[in-house]
Amino acid sequence: MQTICANATKAGGAICIIRVSGNDAISITNRIFRSARQKDLTLMAGYTVHLGEIVDRESNIIDDALVIVYCAPRSYTGEESTEIMCHGSAYIVQRIIELLMEEGCRLARPGEFTERAFMNGKMDLSQAEAVADLIASSNAAMHRLAMSQMRGGFSKELKRLRDQLLQMTSLLELEIDFSEENVEFADRQQLLTLATDICTVIERLIQSFRIGNAIKNGVPVAIIGPTNTGKSTLLNALLHDDRAIVSDIHGTTRDSIEDTINIQGITFRFIDTAGIRESNDQIERIGIERSWQKAQEAEIVLVMTDHPDIDIDLTPLTGKHIIKVYNKADIITYPTNQNNHDSVVISAKQGTNIDCLEQMLVDATNINKVEDSDIIVTNVRHVEALQQAHSHILRVIEDMGAQKSGDKYSMTHTPLSSDLIALDLHACTDALSEIIGDVTSEDTLQNIFSHFCVGK
Amino acid sequence: MQTICANATKAGGAICIIRVSGNDAISITNRIFRSARQKDLTLMAGYTVHLGEIVDRESNIIDDALVIVYCAPRSYTGEESTEIMCHGSAYIVQRIIELLMEEGCRLARPGEFTERAFMNGKMDLSQAEAVADLIASSNAAMHRLAMSQMRGGFSKELKRLRDQLLQMTSLLELEIDFSEENVEFADRQQLLTLATDICTVIERLIQSFRIGNAIKNGVPVAIIGPTNTGKSTLLNALLHDDRAIVSDIHGTTRDSIEDTINIQGITFRFIDTAGIRESNDQIERIGIERSWQKAQEAEIVLVMTDHPDIDIDLTPLTGKHIIKVYNKADIITYPTNQNNHDSVVISAKQGTNIDCLEQMLVDATNINKVEDSDIIVTNVRHVEALQQAHSHILRVIEDMGAQKSGDKYSMTHTPLSSDLIALDLHACTDALSEIIGDVTSEDTLQNIFSHFCVGK
Repeated sequence: MQTICANATKAGGAICIIRVSGNDAISITNRIFRSARQKDLTLMAGYTVHLGEIVDRESNIIDDALVIVYCAPRSYTGEESTEIMCHGSAYIVQRIIELLMEEGCRLARPGEFTERAFMNGKMDLSQAEAVADLIASSNAAMHRLAMSQMRGGFSKELKRLRDQLLQMTSLLELEIDFSEENVEFADRQQLLTLATDICTVIERLIQSFRIGNAIKNGVPVAIIGPTNTGKSTLLNALLHDDRAIVSDIHGTTRDSIEDTINIQGITFRFIDTAGIRESNDQIERIGIERSWQKAQEAEIVLVMTDHPDIDIDLTPLTGKHIIKVYNKADIITYPTNQNNHDSVVISAKQGTNIDCLEQMLVDATNINKVEDSDIIVTNVRHVEALQQAHSHILRVIEDMGAQKSGDKYSMTHTPLSSDLIALDLHACTDALSEIIGDVTSEDTLQNIFSHFCVGK
Repeated sequence: MQTICANATKAGGAICIIRVSGNDAISITNRIFRSARQKDLTLMAGYTVHLGEIVDRESNIIDDALVIVYCAPRSYTGEESTEIMCHGSAYIVQRIIELLMEEGCRLARPGEFTERAFMNGKMDLSQAEAVADLIASSNAAMHRLAMSQMRGGFSKELKRLRDQLLQMTSLLELEIDFSEENVEFADRQQLLTLATDICTVIERLIQSFRIGNAIKNGVPVAIIGPTNTGKSTLLNALLHDDRAIVSDIHGTTRDSIEDTINIQGITFRFIDTAGIRESNDQIERIGIERSWQKAQEAEIVLVMTDHPDIDIDLTPLTGKHIIKVYNKADIITYPTNQNNHDSVVISAKQGTNIDCLEQMLVDATNINKVEDSDIIVTNVRHVEALQQAHSHILRVIEDMGAQKSGDKYSMTHTPLSSDLIALDLHACTDALSEIIGDVTSEDTLQNIFSHFCVGK
């Protein structure tokens, strides 16, 4: 494999790191490195740091630098590697990369270091994907999921399922070998139980994507209600506590974050909706129509009002988690029973009961009920593979002559022959293997790693 | 000194580095670090790298990380230090810094690592300032200057001057000790020669700032001429070759760079001027007036025309480097002698002779005539200190009874007593020492390091 290099840090900080990986990584780095004690990097032990200068062929000094040497296979990629730490100047980074390329390096594609780590068996595919999620993680919940996935929690669960499927398959295939003798090695009822168990686990994993996606991309929330009920005041009140912290983390300006709010480590994404009320005005009705459509994208809908009675028809929101928000408690007197499990009386202006509303938002997500040991699927590719595995395992169950009635499965028709069942079992195993990357097309790999940043 | 920490990289890359420095740097890092082999970082040798996990007090894993250990005094700051390399997630960096602070670190002020390096004698003040310049360097010329200054080229020259001044002073002070005996240890003519030599060197350094400033902040260029002579077409033609490279380096958008052009490693800053022509219109005349004023800020003025004769009065531009640009050679026939040392015939539209104009711009700066061994002053603080030193050394020369006539100095009046001359010599030495940082107020230091980025 050709030796690759890339800037692993963003320009503009105090320090930049250039990563080099491949057979010639250390010898190439050595050719542009010069130290007072004439060190030869190719003779240095792994996990050691060396102070020196990066020089071009005319001995012009590009920068003082520290070089870390990693010897294969004890490196991120599993290959010979170096990391060059230089001053954080875009010009210097550019020059060092030019020198590395003159000496035989090629610029790394996005994610190519992690791709090589995967190729060299340093991690499986779902762990590699978790690396990208980890880098992108901007809240505690997302970080926890990515860490757990990177450390192989999800992979372990998938491997467990796969082992069970393989066990079933091998029993059935044994029967095929002895088919002329018409033996049944595997107890059919036991096989069916195993298949339905696997089916249940896959269904739970698919369902976890709802929560995984909310954690990863933020929980979509819509605030609807007549104009002038104080929607933007509420948004500001919710932003209030958190804004500074969010800016700190993201390094972003107020403008771009004001519709994303972080409460108890969970990101809420506020969908912009116009005021909703009865109207005869044609143009206004189009606006209201659009607001209802937007509210459909939300998982949680805050229905806001400044009257004790809500006069909005909520039937279009069936299936959404609805929280009724009675605003302007500072000027309106509400009945005392208006604070309950799905409604809250607040004053957005004075900040009254905002903490209460925040808690209701958090509870509505179920995210805080996630245990560390729970496996949560966060990746669209994974959920698609799981859905495929699910349809195959359902077919296996049907092949075995069973059908679901209520919560239970029972034998309803004649089972197919072992070899046909084995085929569907294989398809199910392959679908799960695709997540880990044991069975994966070049296209899939390309697609996954191209979404990484350069240098990772 | 309290142990400090900061993110030394910009969030958003594949990797981030958190720097920790101070007496407890290694033990604090050790408390949030856990490795499979139960390594104790406080027992590790300097310049070694350790793979492990960063964990909080509840043993939650924040990230996999590499920790580099540096033992005092062999570190950037000269103190005990570590560098924690983690995944480039803003959330992870934030959490690790929080953990370090829980264990007793304080967030570093901008430039505080370099300030400590200066305090611990790792570099002098002008070298520390060069670090900031190096990080900010965005072209080859600026990079070369900053490298030379960081490696102590300027400091050596200043120390040489200071040694000469100290030698003079000690000779004079010896005379003071023996003042009752009325001896002259120092040959006055020789002293005068030394003082005038020093004066010449200081003058040369001050003059070098013109070029240093141009390298650092870009050479200001104005294009003036009647409207519709093709000023913006020329700007586009000049931008053409270089734009991609500049964007690469700066990572900026086209909008913010379009008036900065990099030719042969030199940055040219184009000042926006409106069209200049005779006008009776009151408002237009104000605009033209402003264009002339703006042209005054330029070092090079391109006078543009689409007629063989330039009918603009150039007297307001006396002292500027003027290049006459005859445009639209594709539709206008110019006399053959119009291409010479200060004028060029071009077609901005067709790109004819643009390379010729570029070379004239480069030559006009004298930047490419700078030798590697030349000392170039790039810093306003340094030039101000040099100007002070200059006024003191002139006073010394006057104290000695000499005056400049033409290029030479000659004795014209009775010299002052040795002790008065020594006073002025001291003042001159102090001014030079301020640049290196041997004599520097707390305010100056504060001011210098506050312009650094955090983490450096």
